[in-house]
Amino acid sequence: MAAQTTEGIRLSALCPKFLHTNSTSHTWPFSAVAELIDNAYDPDVGAKQIWIDQTVVNGQLSLTFTDNGNGMTLDKLHKMLSFGFSDKVAVQGHVPVGLYGNGFKSGSMRLGKDAIVLTKNDSAMHVGMLSQTFLEAVNAEQVIVPIISFNKKRQVVNTPSSDVNLQAILGHSLLNSEKDLLAELDAIIGKKGTRIIIWNLRRDKNGKSEFDFTTDKYDIRIPEEFDGSFRKGYKKQERMEHVAPDSDYSLRVYCSILYLKPRMQIVLRGQKVQTQLVSKNLAHIEKDVYRPKSISHKAVKITFGYNCRNKEHYGIMMYHKNRLIKAYVKVGCQLKANNMGVGVVGVIECNYLKPTHNKQDFDYTNDYRLTLAAVGEKLNDYWNEMKLQKNTLSSVPVEDEQKRPDQNWAQCDSCLKWRKLPDAMGKLPSKWYCHMNPDPQFRDCNVPEEPEDDDEITHSTYEKTHKKRQVTVS
Amino acid sequence: MAAQTTEGIRLSALCPKFLHTNSTSHTWPFSAVAELIDNAYDPDVGAKQIWIDQTVVNGQLSLTFTDNGNGMTLDKLHKMLSFGFSDKVAVQGHVPVGLYGNGFKSGSMRLGKDAIVLTKNDSAMHVGMLSQTFLEAVNAEQVIVPIISFNKKRQVVNTPSSDVNLQAILGHSLLNSEKDLLAELDAIIGKKGTRIIIWNLRRDKNGKSEFDFTTDKYDIRIPEEFDGSFRKGYKKQERMEHVAPDSDYSLRVYCSILYLKPRMQIVLRGQKVQTQLVSKNLAHIEKDVYRPKSISHKAVKITFGYNCRNKEHYGIMMYHKNRLIKAYVKVGCQLKANNMGVGVVGVIECNYLKPTHNKQDFDYTNDYRLTLAAVGEKLNDYWNEMKLQKNTLSSVPVEDEQKRPDQNWAQCDSCLKWRKLPDAMGKLPSKWYCHMNPDPQFRDCNVPEEPEDDDEITHSTYEKTHKKRQVTVS
Repeated sequence: MAAQTTEGIRLSALCPKFLHTNSTSHTWPFSAVAELIDNAYDPDVGAKQIWIDQTVVNGQLSLTFTDNGNGMTLDKLHKMLSFGFSDKVAVQGHVPVGLYGNGFKSGSMRLGKDAIVLTKNDSAMHVGMLSQTFLEAVNAEQVIVPIISFNKKRQVVNTPSSDVNLQAILGHSLLNSEKDLLAELDAIIGKKGTRIIIWNLRRDKNGKSEFDFTTDKYDIRIPEEFDGSFRKGYKKQERMEHVAPDSDYSLRVYCSILYLKPRMQIVLRGQKVQTQLVSKNLAHIEKDVYRPKSISHKAVKITFGYNCRNKEHYGIMMYHKNRLIKAYVKVGCQLKANNMGVGVVGVIECNYLKPTHNKQDFDYTNDYRLTLAAVGEKLNDYWNEMKLQKNTLSSVPVEDEQKRPDQNWAQCDSCLKWRKLPDAMGKLPSKWYCHMNPDPQFRDCNVPEEPEDDDEITHSTYEKTHKKRQVTVS
Repeated sequence: MAAQTTEGIRLSALCPKFLHTNSTSHTWPFSAVAELIDNAYDPDVGAKQIWIDQTVVNGQLSLTFTDNGNGMTLDKLHKMLSFGFSDKVAVQGHVPVGLYGNGFKSGSMRLGKDAIVLTKNDSAMHVGMLSQTFLEAVNAEQVIVPIISFNKKRQVVNTPSSDVNLQAILGHSLLNSEKDLLAELDAIIGKKGTRIIIWNLRRDKNGKSEFDFTTDKYDIRIPEEFDGSFRKGYKKQERMEHVAPDSDYSLRVYCSILYLKPRMQIVLRGQKVQTQLVSKNLAHIEKDVYRPKSISHKAVKITFGYNCRNKEHYGIMMYHKNRLIKAYVKVGCQLKANNMGVGVVGVIECNYLKPTHNKQDFDYTNDYRLTLAAVGEKLNDYWNEMKLQKNTLSSVPVEDEQKRPDQNWAQCDSCLKWRKLPDAMGKLPSKWYCHMNPDPQFRDCNVPEEPEDDDEITHSTYEKTHKKRQVTVS
């Protein structure tokens, strides 16, 4: 086992079993899917679209992830099939989500036992395989990753070891001939992009897929549970006592809120995901500011508002570098069993915190706990103020009113920029472009986005009269 | 970067940054400590004692973990410094906790940036280093792990690469001479055992250690939080609305319940941890049975009882192969804000479930959710029955009565066997041995333990008269 480096010091080795070990942090399958979406989204790939499909390859149920990003060089593909190599850097203000160099491995091996990656760019095409079934079949002592390249003439690039790599891929993947490989490379529309096929998908002890592909043919869902005695909708673990938001069990809904500012279209089973600008989709929006000690009290914006769709889905949406980490986290008065804070959603981007291994939680530090406590207090302020302002005007509690989002935003299907629209535009067509904008100033894909009015806010946008009263009374 | 195997297929590589990535699943520092304890406990090592200490090595604050287990061969040490190699098997009914081959890496790299492992057995002594500081200093592209061996004459075993390995260790660890290394090997009392030293311990942004070593000099604690405006005891994330049990912030208390049946003594900062037989430390004990579909309805025992020490610490203790995974999980009526189920502790060993990457949770499968639902129903049964039986006799609610454990057990300090003692023995001496047993049948370390009366139970040990009444009434 003792592979040594040229310098004579042993390499730390990777046992094939580690592929499973490393995937066990994804307790929720959509968290594995999100890792693969992040990879396409990040600025080094910079895909404008990613297509997620369920399909059958060579008789086997498979998941495919195809993007039209930059594709990969041979070296980059090898790093993708290795552990911890992340040299992602921000490009033109687009900050990468990936930071651990582990997303593809933990994500793909959580969803299935085997994965093949096909990638192409202007100069070449490469195919690599990460397969637990292959490693078992050849009794591999360490994780080996067969990789081959095709040249522009669509021929395998000959090297001393290309044959053994090619035979490993053809013999142990679902693609059993060079023709099959080229066909999948051709499935990447355009000149550049990457396609991932995952097979031997996870099944339960009865051989049932962990996903429900049939209830909605444009969605991938986590099935309801049925045990003879009870049936209930899937909930994430932390929901226990609460109503589960649909993002817990519908991949389509989860994808729609995965990024705070979506910059890439996700096409799920042929149909575009209508992304939401979460913080712009609320009613009675107010902003507040939290100043974490750990970043020298620099202001971090929190947006509060009421969920217009379902008042039962409430809590804090916590993002990190644009990526959703935790959804609908109850804080402040929402933690009490007294119906306070119902319907109120808060949105915060916590770039100063550190996500955990599976990017579904933050490292549980004092910084994190202080954030939750502070956001809880600010949510209480917002709730009390809204109660004071709105309930004097109406007999219906503010959370039960019919509400519409304060603002109306649309994303151009061509340039993917977001445009603010006037009220009462009615339902938009399923494809919307900048040239349809009623506002001539922004009726062109070449015009930059309207700057956010509040990127630099330093104080809360509303007066906390409720607090003043308390002070006066006491 | 392209290290190739002899067969010509590339190895998946390990970037030094992955050491940190892999450790991020431990959001709670004691979960990292537990991994190192598990390694000593497991049957391949079979330590009778492990000593955990905070010390200063060469001017640097360090944590040490020293066991008197079997020590390691060179190959085993290399596997320990690699990823995913776990060939642990049960020995004489002692089932290993370790299953992922990742505990040392994720645990040590969570606690500090650098670790050195010193191990000895009858034939040789070996020293290996896993150090992020070293890898950064030499600009390593992959994780390399310097290892050297000493022969019986206490001399470094010469190999073509022993010098470069030795220089790496002496130049980049806290042990800067062969003499220092030998002194630490000598700190392993006896002929066999392993000693791990971790340094560059994790600190917060203000340079403060994440542990409180001063409040109790025989404990390692997670400090209370202080932010000027509020101070409160540390709680694990899932506690939110509940009182935090002391096992959340005291390593001594956590160690005392880490194993369902403790077989190894843990000596924390010089003082033995008084292990608890959790399921025998309760009052009004009754047993129930759950039959998971996934293991063909085989009976799994659940022990219910009242916590005699603090009625605020209640919920289910979920073990897996003897190791605590989740503590005080609220189920059934305990989830409602109505004071029902207060004080009731349940204990279950869920060997049919799969722990996650950090061994602090179970994979969130249907099996797991069904378990929680079933245990919740059975807890409700127990609670209702106790209310019915006890409250007719007394005006004090059963959870508020002064209680003593139903049974009295002691562990022999020599053979580590557990012995049942008669009631009213009074306080035991701090060291207790089999020869002090009032029962002559078990007054000898050579006598096997009393068999558990209930290992094979098939039905609940009490009659659910409460349920019968309901049926009669309705």
